[in-house]
Amino acid sequence: MTQPPALHPAPRPPFATPEAAEEGFYAAFAAIDPAAMAEVWAEDPDTLCIHPGGGLLQGKAAVMQSWMEIFSAAQPPTIEVELISARTQGDLAVRVLLESIRPSGGPAETASRVLTTHVFRLLDGSWYLVQHHASLPLRAGPQGGDPERRLH
Amino acid sequence: MTQPPALHPAPRPPFATPEAAEEGFYAAFAAIDPAAMAEVWAEDPDTLCIHPGGGLLQGKAAVMQSWMEIFSAAQPPTIEVELISARTQGDLAVRVLLESIRPSGGPAETASRVLTTHVFRLLDGSWYLVQHHASLPLRAGPQGGDPERRLH
Repeated sequence: MTQPPALHPAPRPPFATPEAAEEGFYAAFAAIDPAAMAEVWAEDPDTLCIHPGGGLLQGKAAVMQSWMEIFSAAQPPTIEVELISARTQGDLAVRVLLESIRPSGGPAETASRVLTTHVFRLLDGSWYLVQHHASLPLRAGPQGGDPERRLH
Repeated sequence: MTQPPALHPAPRPPFATPEAAEEGFYAAFAAIDPAAMAEVWAEDPDTLCIHPGGGLLQGKAAVMQSWMEIFSAAQPPTIEVELISARTQGDLAVRVLLESIRPSGGPAETASRVLTTHVFRLLDGSWYLVQHHASLPLRAGPQGGDPERRLH
């Protein structure tokens, strides 16, 4: 059985803008392509990743290990993203997105909605991801959250 | 009944550094002081806050409403923070922290451990908080997370 052609081949570095690096991230994620994902992340000791409900992963090796585990268990998902906020200053950029992630071909109601903060750095002429902090609202609504945890 | 004296009165703006604004944030949080908390946040339409397990709150009014609700139901908590990462470029700063939050006087085992990304902006000579994105690891360990959500 042959693989279907990728509709959106993942762009590769150099990424001229934070948006381009982010496009590379989501293309690699949608294609569950570890090599493309690895090229999106900075070689930076402070690189970090927090998956929804997950702990802190620091350093590119730990971050990539987690993505390889996620990709090994998954079918290529369908991902839609909505940009909430974007700030760039010099070689530092912060973007907040609402992700909608569901099994490929699955109905929209099955989507996980994930709030994500991305941090990018401009390094050697290309923007790279240095931080992915994602969280899963536990219930719908702007005041949502675990009521037992409403201390914070 | 008189209020006990605050051991750490919350600093007020101008905040000379992102660290000073962050100190103001945690002092206001620990004192459950809405007025001090309001002074930490930027008057910025893109101001946003994501509480652990919560949805997206946008705009200072919605953000402050959430803090007033949290403070109205809580006793002053004990908060310890560990700095994970800090990046500043021009008037933009990003800091990642591991917070440990527990009822005042409560045993350390009762603490909620929260991973938080803060974004600060330098506006009119003072650093202000423009983003607080907090998430609660659902279980211990660097690979933690809801296994049913391991798609991402």
